[in-house]
Amino acid sequence: MVKLGIDLMGGDQAPSAVMEGLERVWHHLKPETSISLYGTIEALALVPYSPRIEKIVCSDYIAMDEHPVKALQQKKDSTLVRAFADAAGQKISAVASAGHSGAIMVASMQILGLIDGISRPVVLSVFPKIDDKPLVVLDVGINVDCKAEQFLEFARIGSTYAEKVLGIPHPKVSLLNSGTEKSKGSLLYQKAHSLLAEYAAIHFEGNLEPRDLFDNEIDVLVCDGFTGNIVLKEVEAFFSLSQKLGLEHSFLEQLNYENHGGSPILGVKGNVILAHGASGPEAIKNMILSAESIALANFVSQLSSI
Amino acid sequence: MVKLGIDLMGGDQAPSAVMEGLERVWHHLKPETSISLYGTIEALALVPYSPRIEKIVCSDYIAMDEHPVKALQQKKDSTLVRAFADAAGQKISAVASAGHSGAIMVASMQILGLIDGISRPVVLSVFPKIDDKPLVVLDVGINVDCKAEQFLEFARIGSTYAEKVLGIPHPKVSLLNSGTEKSKGSLLYQKAHSLLAEYAAIHFEGNLEPRDLFDNEIDVLVCDGFTGNIVLKEVEAFFSLSQKLGLEHSFLEQLNYENHGGSPILGVKGNVILAHGASGPEAIKNMILSAESIALANFVSQLSSI
Repeated sequence: MVKLGIDLMGGDQAPSAVMEGLERVWHHLKPETSISLYGTIEALALVPYSPRIEKIVCSDYIAMDEHPVKALQQKKDSTLVRAFADAAGQKISAVASAGHSGAIMVASMQILGLIDGISRPVVLSVFPKIDDKPLVVLDVGINVDCKAEQFLEFARIGSTYAEKVLGIPHPKVSLLNSGTEKSKGSLLYQKAHSLLAEYAAIHFEGNLEPRDLFDNEIDVLVCDGFTGNIVLKEVEAFFSLSQKLGLEHSFLEQLNYENHGGSPILGVKGNVILAHGASGPEAIKNMILSAESIALANFVSQLSSI
Repeated sequence: MVKLGIDLMGGDQAPSAVMEGLERVWHHLKPETSISLYGTIEALALVPYSPRIEKIVCSDYIAMDEHPVKALQQKKDSTLVRAFADAAGQKISAVASAGHSGAIMVASMQILGLIDGISRPVVLSVFPKIDDKPLVVLDVGINVDCKAEQFLEFARIGSTYAEKVLGIPHPKVSLLNSGTEKSKGSLLYQKAHSLLAEYAAIHFEGNLEPRDLFDNEIDVLVCDGFTGNIVLKEVEAFFSLSQKLGLEHSFLEQLNYENHGGSPILGVKGNVILAHGASGPEAIKNMILSAESIALANFVSQLSSI
């Protein structure tokens, strides 16, 4: 039985997209799952009564253009600060928001805290493959200036996620790189390759070239947060292109971020799902489902125990 | 009137793909364009006589798995060394090869030499856009560990290429980045943004996010060689995916490297076209056409004069 903390005020289309997403999600959730909904009194007034929703009235929220650290310090009664505090206090099993990504990141670190042995949080994304298996990719956004040692954390976190949340036994890990040879790529990637090759805690399969992104035998792909974000956004370019060209195929739908449940922020002592700022109702629905999955998998304790 | 130096031995499918590419290219070339063909005596024997081909018999060639610097030192009578020496001696107007990219890079620097004011050569690729205009992207491969100052060279070289080879007046330059704000990206990209914003020699339009890769108003996109190579190879992934899904559209054909003419290596005192190692006849045909374009545009003197 899990209780999910949802930020009613998060995202460019909030609160309406969040309300609509909530309506769509109910019959996909487990019957015993309930929701804590963090919003202003005006926004919460628009949400119909449900015995499965606890409305948490907050006086404020953090807007998309605010300075994350300052906003978190000053807006103690904002939806994000309240939700993260409840997650830290074990009142809810996960926080999910399409709000200010910087603020969510800082709140994850400051309010929840890092898991022992993890130096920085990391954002993970699940890419579709042509064999219908998922590819876990991380970091896709936070650690834009990485040390090679962080790739080991990414590999460990990604492997645990693949195994415990996606149910993939003995996940295979690759390093994203410009070629398959170990001497390929920047100095950072050459060093990361050496470290990964010697890291007994994971199953390292060498480099993966981006040309094989959708067709490979790998379960977890690690990269720095800058490159990962570029790769993720290029997938968005393909989806957008395919729409403009009028191409149709069920696989292409999987490239649409609306059909993904946002991205988990991992390495912190709590379950956090960050959705795209532009999320519409469908993306919000999937964000809530992701929050339920990661909460049910009890990911934090899985990661803490290895 | 230009004479193009073509490496008959370069590429995984050489010499047959090069021979077939040559046959296909003739009626696309200007009538006065001729070719110097560098090959072993056995390979050249298979090439039919043409008054427009001068066969240059070499005793050796550099294989794909050789150490570039050593191979260039030891194999003075290899096709690549001979072709680059002829380019340096102004006997030919361009060198084009689908051979060992590392050896071609080193030969470009050592045998042709760098243009004044350029610190390293750079590889350029032309991406298609949905508005049918080209997007010049560089560096897509050489400078995997960049200094921010090199982005200025990329911007200058890319702008000159867009203007002089592609005929785009006042080309607009963007920095590839994970967001549009100037504070986005790694420290390298933040610094590159500041330098580009102050660089009067180009028309800088700020950052471009990869999600807008195929739909934007930009003519030249600059990035480090690692990221550029990743972005280029992800386009290959999308083309490969679209083929596997059976998607059809004329735009998709433009994502196929076979339909591109290889990538120019710029910043050196000579015209060099590097084609994909896996090039088949169609890719070779287009490589030769690219070599003709860049030779006719007299790119080297254009770049030297600014």
